[in-house]
Amino acid sequence: MGRSKAKYELGHSHLERLVHYYHFLGERVDLDETTRVSSQQLAQLLTMDDTQVRKDLAAIGVRGVPRLGYRAAEVVEAIRQVLGFDQIHRAILVGAGRLGGALAAYRGFVKYGLRIVGVFDQDLGKVGTTIGGHFVYSTNELETVIERNNARLAILAVPAETCQALADRLVRAGISGIWNFGPTTLTVPDGVVVRHEHIVVGLAELAYHLQNEPGSPLPVSQDTE
Amino acid sequence: MGRSKAKYELGHSHLERLVHYYHFLGERVDLDETTRVSSQQLAQLLTMDDTQVRKDLAAIGVRGVPRLGYRAAEVVEAIRQVLGFDQIHRAILVGAGRLGGALAAYRGFVKYGLRIVGVFDQDLGKVGTTIGGHFVYSTNELETVIERNNARLAILAVPAETCQALADRLVRAGISGIWNFGPTTLTVPDGVVVRHEHIVVGLAELAYHLQNEPGSPLPVSQDTE
Repeated sequence: MGRSKAKYELGHSHLERLVHYYHFLGERVDLDETTRVSSQQLAQLLTMDDTQVRKDLAAIGVRGVPRLGYRAAEVVEAIRQVLGFDQIHRAILVGAGRLGGALAAYRGFVKYGLRIVGVFDQDLGKVGTTIGGHFVYSTNELETVIERNNARLAILAVPAETCQALADRLVRAGISGIWNFGPTTLTVPDGVVVRHEHIVVGLAELAYHLQNEPGSPLPVSQDTE
Repeated sequence: MGRSKAKYELGHSHLERLVHYYHFLGERVDLDETTRVSSQQLAQLLTMDDTQVRKDLAAIGVRGVPRLGYRAAEVVEAIRQVLGFDQIHRAILVGAGRLGGALAAYRGFVKYGLRIVGVFDQDLGKVGTTIGGHFVYSTNELETVIERNNARLAILAVPAETCQALADRLVRAGISGIWNFGPTTLTVPDGVVVRHEHIVVGLAELAYHLQNEPGSPLPVSQDTE
């Protein structure tokens, strides 16, 4: 509505930074139409240069005013649109174990457009109970619930050995995006998007930075012979 | 030991890709000293160009042989060293709720050098129980357990409102790296590294790619007036 449409390529790091800006601004309770935010404030978040912030925002069409900064609401709205948080993504969640339970209970997803429409488990002891406010279905009902809710996204929190078979089944049932928390890689047909949630990336970054504290040079794997 | 040491700057995306290579190779049961892996195989993992793989590995001192590829074991070992997975990172985990429980129970951390030496909760109903094989201590004992185990890393899986006070206390107790799963940003002194685990980054990426499927151009926030 009154906005141009353009195909637009967003790199992973850029996208990640936008999520951080969005999250940070979304946390602030004082946000109203007049609230301003500076590129320096956003840069501090990620301990980086404010030039990067200005680039990131300019690339999605948001420009600040010198000395006044950005209108916070405009930044939030632009990120919402570009990342698709303004749309509703109906998702099913497979696996009602510890991790599945944590995901089912997480209320923050709403801000990102995610709506969980069904939780599934193959353990009959869990079927029929409620987890994080969601009814737990038997995995036998996967296709029915996906179709009934027109779900396109699936969140997998199941053991590695069941992931691939499950993914195949979900794709046949019409799922086009898989958010995989299982510790395995998946093979899917073209047109299906998989995001493999690698919780250890964060750990890796911490471990890396801890060993790179001043005075502790990092051994680089390079033969000196 | 026979390797040069050099300070070495690793960008976030580079680091993330290295973790993926490491994880992928670590999953393969057939790995031995003779196993080879090609840059094409690794590139497929992340649906990207194999030139990127060669750059990523060259930057950490690993070079392949034309037509033969890389020695898989060498790739694994180089990543282990560069990312510090060959060291033991003793960590405490605060918060024995759903997410804390999932983290406490996750066995995969061992491959990355993480050893959880204590789980804490302020809920007296949980103190003294076992979660994911770990004894749950009262948060009153934080300082004692950190000191006794010489822990430098803390994993926070607590509600947003308690994160900052807890972080302050942990830093005073000698923690220099915080892996924060709480939905909030933290302020820490220089020299302390924080990694804010943003589970929604993965969701953002999925949502973004789903709306960017062929034929559905992305609205860019840009006024056309």
